[in-house]
Amino acid sequence: MKHEWIKVFSPATIGNIGPGFDVLGLAVKGWGDTVEARRAPAGVVISAITSAQPLSKDPRRNTAGIAAKLILDLLGVKGGLELKLRKGLPIGSGLGSSAASAAAGAFAANYLYHGGLTKEQLILPATKAEETVSGGFFADNTAPALLGGATLTRSCVPLDITRIGSIRKLHIVLVTPNIVVLTRHARQILPASVPMKDFVYNMANTALITAAFAKNDYSLFARSLHDVVVEPVRAHLIKGFAQVKEAALQAGADGVAISGSGPTVFAITDNIRKARFIEQQMVMAFIEHGVKSRSIVTSVDAEGTRLID
Amino acid sequence: MKHEWIKVFSPATIGNIGPGFDVLGLAVKGWGDTVEARRAPAGVVISAITSAQPLSKDPRRNTAGIAAKLILDLLGVKGGLELKLRKGLPIGSGLGSSAASAAAGAFAANYLYHGGLTKEQLILPATKAEETVSGGFFADNTAPALLGGATLTRSCVPLDITRIGSIRKLHIVLVTPNIVVLTRHARQILPASVPMKDFVYNMANTALITAAFAKNDYSLFARSLHDVVVEPVRAHLIKGFAQVKEAALQAGADGVAISGSGPTVFAITDNIRKARFIEQQMVMAFIEHGVKSRSIVTSVDAEGTRLID
Repeated sequence: MKHEWIKVFSPATIGNIGPGFDVLGLAVKGWGDTVEARRAPAGVVISAITSAQPLSKDPRRNTAGIAAKLILDLLGVKGGLELKLRKGLPIGSGLGSSAASAAAGAFAANYLYHGGLTKEQLILPATKAEETVSGGFFADNTAPALLGGATLTRSCVPLDITRIGSIRKLHIVLVTPNIVVLTRHARQILPASVPMKDFVYNMANTALITAAFAKNDYSLFARSLHDVVVEPVRAHLIKGFAQVKEAALQAGADGVAISGSGPTVFAITDNIRKARFIEQQMVMAFIEHGVKSRSIVTSVDAEGTRLID
Repeated sequence: MKHEWIKVFSPATIGNIGPGFDVLGLAVKGWGDTVEARRAPAGVVISAITSAQPLSKDPRRNTAGIAAKLILDLLGVKGGLELKLRKGLPIGSGLGSSAASAAAGAFAANYLYHGGLTKEQLILPATKAEETVSGGFFADNTAPALLGGATLTRSCVPLDITRIGSIRKLHIVLVTPNIVVLTRHARQILPASVPMKDFVYNMANTALITAAFAKNDYSLFARSLHDVVVEPVRAHLIKGFAQVKEAALQAGADGVAISGSGPTVFAITDNIRKARFIEQQMVMAFIEHGVKSRSIVTSVDAEGTRLID
């Protein structure tokens, strides 16, 4: 019984949701990281990693391992954990890859040792684990990865998170081009200040997106996915971004934005057939710039990190 | 039948709701402007004004008259209107005084001539009427005055307004000190740009206030009434503001902010007895600075501009 394996899935997340820089985050279905875990005598061991990219098995350098260890320490248990990590999310994709691993690791440790911590209580350790690797303390991926749906980070220190809700009619096209964007660099190029007019505009859009998820209202979301603060300075990090955005809008998307710090780009629609066409057109537009990509048509993951199988 | 009087009430409104500069607005009960109106042969005539402050009866210089005229023109009717205006709202108080008159005037004209315009459709003419007098085109008072509850202005040109909702448990303490703040001046002193950190903080609070009104959740609102962008530069326009705010918080308020461009200050609580104590303490704190004030304990006006009696 003690050595039974469990399997935990944690979804991909879209940081910012366009204008809501460092405030909003959204969990999406289909892509994510999986952690298999069982009790072990002591310490945290990562016995296997399945990943398209090279990744250290050192549990102190992997967010799943770090988060699991933080939970064990928090619970004060003497036992340890063995983890097997399957990375469904490419690293540095703007889909919250390290956050998903952290969320899954924290969830597994709490579950196996009957810690009784709520998902809300797992956000802080998961965010700390992510910080160790990313260098920044931000919950806009860990919070939605754990809670599901759209989340709002009012403050990181102290951590103040609210789950806003979901939009059932929403179809999301995710396109991850084969481009490397370093989050650290994507933050460094941000302006130190924002013109008053742009401040008001992004704030209004972010508030409307919040209302949209709180009321499960697609049409509100459809008219508010506009970011005039961060996208203009980050767009050039993604080769072909302007044309990919234009292709999505031409194909009928109601909005297009960068996921987190990129390079993943996402588009929205409430029509599944349109979604497939938008996906095609976006992938083609990247190809025209000599960029290969991986894509999916998906929807909101309202559940967040969970046991599977 | 043609010459029967109707009576229209339009409530006071809190522009910005703290951090949501030029985005959020909220209608409150108790205080407001009343327009009595009946059909007249041609043109708009203001036959009486009851107001604590001197106010022109020239219908081209009064927002109720201007808005009524805009509606008559919009409907293409040949008849006119006679209006009697009772100003419940002091001018330049930060409670949307000119917006309330404009909303009531527009509503009355549409009603008496069976115009069939929705309240949403009255926002644009009412906002234009207010602009004639205030010099600025902003819907954060006209929109909530007409629609009731909290509203979100995503854009003024083109006008894009969403009614967010209400919070039933919310008690609002309004204190209007006997101080003159010119909206024009209150806008001139605003900074041209906002530090990135403050942008994110105000945006997060505004999004959380939006979620609070969308979900009818007082506790979300209670933790998000913080404005680090506009309040710091406008506070000094209101003599004693820092002490009045401190007095309200000491008395148990969950948040305090400036209403619109001031000088009205408002505090929030979900406890009616606390509300009366907060009111007392705020009025006292103003008195200690030699400032008289007018005050009320009120709540959200979820209905907006309407026929009364």
